[in-house]
Amino acid sequence: MHLLVTGGVRSGKSRFAQEQAEQLADRRVFLATGRAWDDEMGERIKRHQDDRDASWQTIEEPIRVWEHLDQPGSVVLLDCLTMWLTNILLEEIELEPAIVSLEEALAAAGNPVVLVTNEVGWGIVPQNALARRFRDEAGRLSQRLARSCDRVVLVAAGLPLELKGSEP
Amino acid sequence: MHLLVTGGVRSGKSRFAQEQAEQLADRRVFLATGRAWDDEMGERIKRHQDDRDASWQTIEEPIRVWEHLDQPGSVVLLDCLTMWLTNILLEEIELEPAIVSLEEALAAAGNPVVLVTNEVGWGIVPQNALARRFRDEAGRLSQRLARSCDRVVLVAAGLPLELKGSEP
Amino acid sequence: MHLLVTGGVRSGKSRFAQEQAEQLADRRVFLATGRAWDDEMGERIKRHQDDRDASWQTIEEPIRVWEHLDQPGSVVLLDCLTMWLTNILLEEIELEPAIVSLEEALAAAGNPVVLVTNEVGWGIVPQNALARRFRDEAGRLSQRLARSCDRVVLVAAGLPLELKGSEP
Repeated sequence: MHLLVTGGVRSGKSRFAQEQAEQLADRRVFLATGRAWDDEMGERIKRHQDDRDASWQTIEEPIRVWEHLDQPGSVVLLDCLTMWLTNILLEEIELEPAIVSLEEALAAAGNPVVLVTNEVGWGIVPQNALARRFRDEAGRLSQRLARSCDRVVLVAAGLPLELKGSEP
Repeated sequence: MHLLVTGGVRSGKSRFAQEQAEQLADRRVFLATGRAWDDEMGERIKRHQDDRDASWQTIEEPIRVWEHLDQPGSVVLLDCLTMWLTNILLEEIELEPAIVSLEEALAAAGNPVVLVTNEVGWGIVPQNALARRFRDEAGRLSQRLARSCDRVVLVAAGLPLELKGSEP
Repeated sequence: MHLLVTGGVRSGKSRFAQEQAEQLADRRVFLATGRAWDDEMGERIKRHQDDRDASWQTIEEPIRVWEHLDQPGSVVLLDCLTMWLTNILLEEIELEPAIVSLEEALAAAGNPVVLVTNEVGWGIVPQNALARRFRDEAGRLSQRLARSCDRVVLVAAGLPLELKGSEP
C-alpha cells in the first residue's frame, strides 16, 4: 500500500501523512529530503521533527531516496518530493533517471511507503524561468507518482479529499 | 453550526458563504474585515456589499472580530479571515492570543457563524519573506478554524467540495 | 453534454479532457487558443499536439472561439480558456461581449464541447496589477462557464474530483 499526499503549503499534509503512516506500521522510517539552507528552513525541519516520537527513525537523504524505500516491516514516510526535486534541479542531476529509480523502488518495496508532495501550480505564471520549470516538473512528478500509488489524497485546511483509492 | 468556506480568489466562495448564511437565519450580520487601502480594494468591497440585501446588517471590524460573533437569533458571516490576518500582521498585533480569542468566541456563540478564508499556499514559494510568513500563517489559521467548525467547504469554479460535515 | 475541466498547471487536465472528449465522439475538433509567443510556449503546444492522433482536426483560433463550437457529429475540445482570456486582454478586446458570445455558442451547440481552464488564484496576491486583473477575470470566467456546463471536474495529480454532474 503506497500513499501519495499532496496539498498547498501549511495545509496539514505532513501531519496527515504522518498519522496515516503511523496506522500502517509500528516501525517507522522518516526519509527527510530537506536541507537547512537557511534559518527559516532549519526551523521548519526542527518543528516537523518535534512532531515525531521515538518510534521514528530518521534518515537524511536529499537525492538517492530510492535506496531507502525497501524497509521490510516498517513504513517509510518520504517528506517531501518537491524538496527532493529542488535538490535534483539545484545539483543539476538528470531528472528522468532519478524519477525512474524512484518508480522502480516503489514497485519493488513490499512495505508501505507514504510520499508527500506540494501543489505549486495553482497561481499565476511566474516571471522566473526556473520557477516555471520547477512547477512544471513538480506537476509532472505528482502525476507519475500518483500512478505508482494505491491511494492519493489532497489535503486542504487539514482535511483530506480522496483522489484515488480509499482509506484502508 | 459553524461553517468554514475556503477557496482561491474569485472562486465564488463569498457568494457561496452568503447563500449558506441566508439559509441558516433570517437575521444576518455581515462582519466586514476589509479596509479600503486603495481604490481597487474599495471597489471590491463595494461590489460585495451590492450583493447583499436589506436583511443584512454590516459591522466593520478589522481586528476584534471575536467581540461580534455572539448574535443570538442571527447568523454571522465573517468575510474574510485572510484580510483579518493581514490587518493583524500589518498592525503588529500578537497573532496567537487573537486566534485563541476567535476560537473561544466561536465555541461560545450559540448562533451560527460562517467564516470565509482564502487558499494562498498553492503557488511557488514567494521571494518576499513577509509573503512567506503570510501564507504560512494563513494555512495554519485555516487548519485551526476548520477544527472549530462543524462543516468545511472548498469552493472552485463557484462549486462546493465538502471537506468536513455536510449540507444541513 | 458540455464539460469544464479545471486544475493547476501540469495537473494532467489537458490529458484528462482529451480522454473524456475521445469517449464522447469519434470525430474530434481541437480548438487551439495558444499562440507560440516564444520557444517555451511553442514547445508546450507541440507536446500537446503529439498527444493527439489523426482522428483529431485542429483549428487555431486565439479569439473568436465561439464561431467554431457548433460541429454536428463531432466533439469540440477548447484548450484553454485562460490562454483565450490572455489573448483577449492583450489585444484589448472587450471581454464581456466575448464571454456572452461564448456562453451563447455553448447553449446553441448540439454537439458536446469540452472546455479546459486553469486555476490561477490559489497563491498570494501578485504585486503586478495586470496579473491581479487576470486572476480575477479567470476566476469569474470559470464560475460563469461552470454554470453553462453539465459537468465540471477539478484535476490534481492527474486525477479527477467531480465538482458538478458526473461521469457519463
